[in-house]
Amino acid sequence: MFSAIQTVYGAQPIDTLRTPAKIAVAFCTLALFMELALKKIVLVAFDQFTDIDLFLMWDILGRNTEDWHVRILGSSAIVRSAHGLPVSVHGPLSEANSADAVLFVSGKEGIPAALAAPDFLPSFELDSRRQRIGSICAGAFILERLGLLSGQATTHPDARSSLQALGLEPVDQPLVCQGNVATAGGCLSALYLVGWLVESWFDVGKRRATLLPVLPAGQQELYDALIGLSIRQGALYDRPSQQETRHGMSSNW
Amino acid sequence: MFSAIQTVYGAQPIDTLRTPAKIAVAFCTLALFMELALKKIVLVAFDQFTDIDLFLMWDILGRNTEDWHVRILGSSAIVRSAHGLPVSVHGPLSEANSADAVLFVSGKEGIPAALAAPDFLPSFELDSRRQRIGSICAGAFILERLGLLSGQATTHPDARSSLQALGLEPVDQPLVCQGNVATAGGCLSALYLVGWLVESWFDVGKRRATLLPVLPAGQQELYDALIGLSIRQGALYDRPSQQETRHGMSSNW
Repeated sequence: MFSAIQTVYGAQPIDTLRTPAKIAVAFCTLALFMELALKKIVLVAFDQFTDIDLFLMWDILGRNTEDWHVRILGSSAIVRSAHGLPVSVHGPLSEANSADAVLFVSGKEGIPAALAAPDFLPSFELDSRRQRIGSICAGAFILERLGLLSGQATTHPDARSSLQALGLEPVDQPLVCQGNVATAGGCLSALYLVGWLVESWFDVGKRRATLLPVLPAGQQELYDALIGLSIRQGALYDRPSQQETRHGMSSNW
Repeated sequence: MFSAIQTVYGAQPIDTLRTPAKIAVAFCTLALFMELALKKIVLVAFDQFTDIDLFLMWDILGRNTEDWHVRILGSSAIVRSAHGLPVSVHGPLSEANSADAVLFVSGKEGIPAALAAPDFLPSFELDSRRQRIGSICAGAFILERLGLLSGQATTHPDARSSLQALGLEPVDQPLVCQGNVATAGGCLSALYLVGWLVESWFDVGKRRATLLPVLPAGQQELYDALIGLSIRQGALYDRPSQQETRHGMSSNW
């Protein structure tokens, strides 16, 4: 970090700087530290992505700029939503490999096309030991192809049989968490996926603060309870993985 | 309608056409009839609009192409969301005046800026006798300036006192319906606003079919009940207007 600061100051040793410059260096150091401390969340999109899946997480997560930053990734500069909205992406798919959290959106036609594209799956080298990884609806099929799922998972109710055909056990609930990997089903369950991510990184308070601004007026307590319940319900399938960890076994989740 | 078809056929009288041409004319007539029968819903956006407000309604409503079509309107070719996404609009604000439903999105900074823009409010000549008109969160402030609100209304909880300062009675619930005008508060209450719109035009079945695809897996019945309850709750404030209608009085709702 100091080498970056010294570059700004022409490699002049910091202890020879005058007081205003020292203050500037301290400020710069703090800013760099804060930037490095921000968690990096990426949302993976593709042509024909389901609009709500991307935009719901984008909006909820985008309201907090102190704890994380969010970027939309795609294999082309512009991806077009299922309903025809063009979205300029912020970076290539490979950026996902260095992110702290990678969330895959869905797309009834977009997912099969993405899975069939020769450059899509090979872009990812994800590691669930150091990254949180999640999916909405048919995004689960990407996680499956990346070898991140086994046992129980959830997806959109209409895609449940397709998940079963892959040897997974589809669960009729909005969130299934296994270690650092979570699948969510039904577009609005993005609420629970985001809630799980924030709560697992921070705490219940940060999760509540993150989701509160989008909850319906007069029903905030009701939704807060429902979100908490759904996250707890999603964690029910986490036990085997947790037990493995307790016994010092490595987990491929 | 027939004059349009005759233009296609060079003004040749239809009864002189051969059978294949008559079939084509019948097909064309049917297509035109279906197009005219489609209800037109517009979503009004502006720079610094709240992402989720626009995209949630856009996605839910955009899944049905048989009963209505949805367009995003703005005062410039591109509007930029609060989180920086540029969106190409489909038409100018004046298109709202001929729409069957006009839904205003929100924006903490976007709404004050839109209200202050000299070309924004004068673009609208809405008529709640023939149009359904709705708002999410601070969109209520546009409805208020257009003279469409009096008595009770709802908005985002953070903006409640500002609504009260305008002489309205803010209600701590997600939806308030008065005749053809509805206000919704808290981003996710877009669910209820869309539900109200579809149910008031069609029936409960169409409302359910419209919202079902986005509901969380395993919680569809719960959300369906909550949506139904919220719409019924929103209609509680509709009584005075209904009574006026029963007595043959005109209403400015």
